[in-house]
Amino acid sequence: MPHHRLESLKKEVPKRIEALRSLMVEEKIEAALILQRVDLFYFTATAQEGALYVDEKEELFFVKKYAPRAREESPLEVIEISSLKEIPSFLRKKPKLLGLELDVVPVELFFSLQQIFPEAKFQNISPLILRLRMIKSPSEIELIKEAAQIASFALEKVPYILREEMSELELAGELLRLIMPKGHQEYIRMRGFNREAHSWHVLSGESGTVLSHIDAPMGGFGPSVAYPMGASLKPIRKNEVVLVDLSTCFWGYHSDQTRCFSIGKLPELLKRGYEVSKKIINLLAKEARPGFSAEWFYKKAKSFAEEEGLGDYFLGPKPYQTKFVGHGIGLEISEPPFLALGHDYPIQEGMTLSIEPKMVFPELGAVGIENTYVVTSEGLLPLTSAQEELIEVGG
Amino acid sequence: MPHHRLESLKKEVPKRIEALRSLMVEEKIEAALILQRVDLFYFTATAQEGALYVDEKEELFFVKKYAPRAREESPLEVIEISSLKEIPSFLRKKPKLLGLELDVVPVELFFSLQQIFPEAKFQNISPLILRLRMIKSPSEIELIKEAAQIASFALEKVPYILREEMSELELAGELLRLIMPKGHQEYIRMRGFNREAHSWHVLSGESGTVLSHIDAPMGGFGPSVAYPMGASLKPIRKNEVVLVDLSTCFWGYHSDQTRCFSIGKLPELLKRGYEVSKKIINLLAKEARPGFSAEWFYKKAKSFAEEEGLGDYFLGPKPYQTKFVGHGIGLEISEPPFLALGHDYPIQEGMTLSIEPKMVFPELGAVGIENTYVVTSEGLLPLTSAQEELIEVGG
Repeated sequence: MPHHRLESLKKEVPKRIEALRSLMVEEKIEAALILQRVDLFYFTATAQEGALYVDEKEELFFVKKYAPRAREESPLEVIEISSLKEIPSFLRKKPKLLGLELDVVPVELFFSLQQIFPEAKFQNISPLILRLRMIKSPSEIELIKEAAQIASFALEKVPYILREEMSELELAGELLRLIMPKGHQEYIRMRGFNREAHSWHVLSGESGTVLSHIDAPMGGFGPSVAYPMGASLKPIRKNEVVLVDLSTCFWGYHSDQTRCFSIGKLPELLKRGYEVSKKIINLLAKEARPGFSAEWFYKKAKSFAEEEGLGDYFLGPKPYQTKFVGHGIGLEISEPPFLALGHDYPIQEGMTLSIEPKMVFPELGAVGIENTYVVTSEGLLPLTSAQEELIEVGG
Repeated sequence: MPHHRLESLKKEVPKRIEALRSLMVEEKIEAALILQRVDLFYFTATAQEGALYVDEKEELFFVKKYAPRAREESPLEVIEISSLKEIPSFLRKKPKLLGLELDVVPVELFFSLQQIFPEAKFQNISPLILRLRMIKSPSEIELIKEAAQIASFALEKVPYILREEMSELELAGELLRLIMPKGHQEYIRMRGFNREAHSWHVLSGESGTVLSHIDAPMGGFGPSVAYPMGASLKPIRKNEVVLVDLSTCFWGYHSDQTRCFSIGKLPELLKRGYEVSKKIINLLAKEARPGFSAEWFYKKAKSFAEEEGLGDYFLGPKPYQTKFVGHGIGLEISEPPFLALGHDYPIQEGMTLSIEPKMVFPELGAVGIENTYVVTSEGLLPLTSAQEELIEVGG
């Protein structure tokens, strides 16, 4: 196990808790109890099961299972408990206002917490946590870059793997075979109720034109109606575009990268769609600076696509076009900031963004490109590195 | 797409809703609003985003996204909505007692629902849903069997893939490469907050002795501290046991199967642990009949392990031994019934059970076996079929 990564994470724990505390003081939230695995990992450097209590004076880290492992991993002192009911007995005072992750904590658990903290009112703490998590430290950026390198490695191999009549799922399996030995975590995390995600968004031809429940320009058929997105058993045919949107995860940090391929020649319209998508991503990456609003990306991209006469295809088929051209990325595959209509807050140094201009051509398929960037004082630096040409193999 | 499967699912939808209605009348729950993706799929035959409203007289299926696809898949009439707020305007009367899946619905969404249904009190409907889902129809059993066949196919290949110094994650990648083209859904569903699951529980040697947050006899190192379970970058060495607990999913239905392998000879103690695990599973499968209590499986298994002098290793290292020897399986990887201490309700015909007697030998590793069965009037029938001998390869 490469322990230097754990040491870097550990070092950040006290700073992160301090930053949360400052925001809590600002927002007048007396105390917080953090329960969700991802947030807990961010603040404790362990993903074991427990709860972190933070107030203006102290932090207490309670672990239900498995305490010995949490002790090895976290720099915080671990208090082993068998039930959340034990927590109040450890507190100096009973909080009157307690922050909880109300966007993800289920009702039944909330009812128990109301019993455990009968004096408390509750407030959603997730917006504060997500605000902190938006700005990445150098070691977090390094992990996203490592995740991106895993994806780049696999994407560069696609031309050698692609075969006529192989199914999308078969290509997906070949990609997983390449990325798993690199340390890829094939559990893509997506925040929220009913949010499911996967790494293997491989869509060929018609599959790219199929929508689903996810807020994305293209859903795909998926393995079945039970999981109606991503790669399917559809065979990949000649002269069809194959869009590979490959999410990877390394040490909990995600990267998102999309490239397009075909066996044989593609229709000119698809090629043009890909070229314009590439122009858009490069334009955004070149022009963006800290302080630009998140929605600038979307508006700029959309108007460029329209100027090129491709507005009808941009970000999905009409009238189901999505209103975002990218998203923040980190411990969850999609997190603030959202490069979306109506998001008029500024992007800042240290944010990591996945930008994904994509187009859907009814009956033909989906094309597009996606890279993950870090925002620096001089602008956007790519963390993804697979070559960006559309590759037409053999044929 | 093999549409005969969708047709079977569609046919069951009205029966399932009727069965829920009967239980609701029995339990005096006036109406239910079902929101979780898996439950919704069970009652509608589509996994699109929406809500199913059921009361004593009617059912209304609301879809937020993506309605055209839901219309193709579900036998129910689809009412397209853009917000749950629109639902009350479609109802004959406002419910005073509304069932919700309170074990999974997050607090924020619950607060919105309180606004939308201001007259209603809320009650947890999940126990009723899970009670129905326990008993599988022939076509559900068929899908679990198909999932099991995918796993069996891959497990039979392990002896040909296993190589000294390959990492657990590399072996996991090879397995994914085999199962993806068969239609495997690499998103293993597990109900509840903070519940994450994966197919690739490949644990070699020491990894099998490592515990984690999951309620399982063995957690494994996992890809990193961020996801501390399952396969890791640890290399597989000679004379080490390799436990492969392979969960597969086909058309939304899961199977769970575990086999053990090694490169070269294993210590006698591990071999004995495996043989006794095999004796236990075959004993349980042979003796169990409808009407036996769920905890009978656990108690019988435990006392057999103790008689064989292996009680200290059974179901995990002391004092962290788990109190279950198996679980129901279906649309979620672990669902009622639980073959666990304290679960004294009877098992019934049509239930599908994963039975997993496993042992952990400190410093040596974990061994065990797992099969998925269906309960019939004559007893348990296995749905999994990989050969059950412990395989020592070459060496």
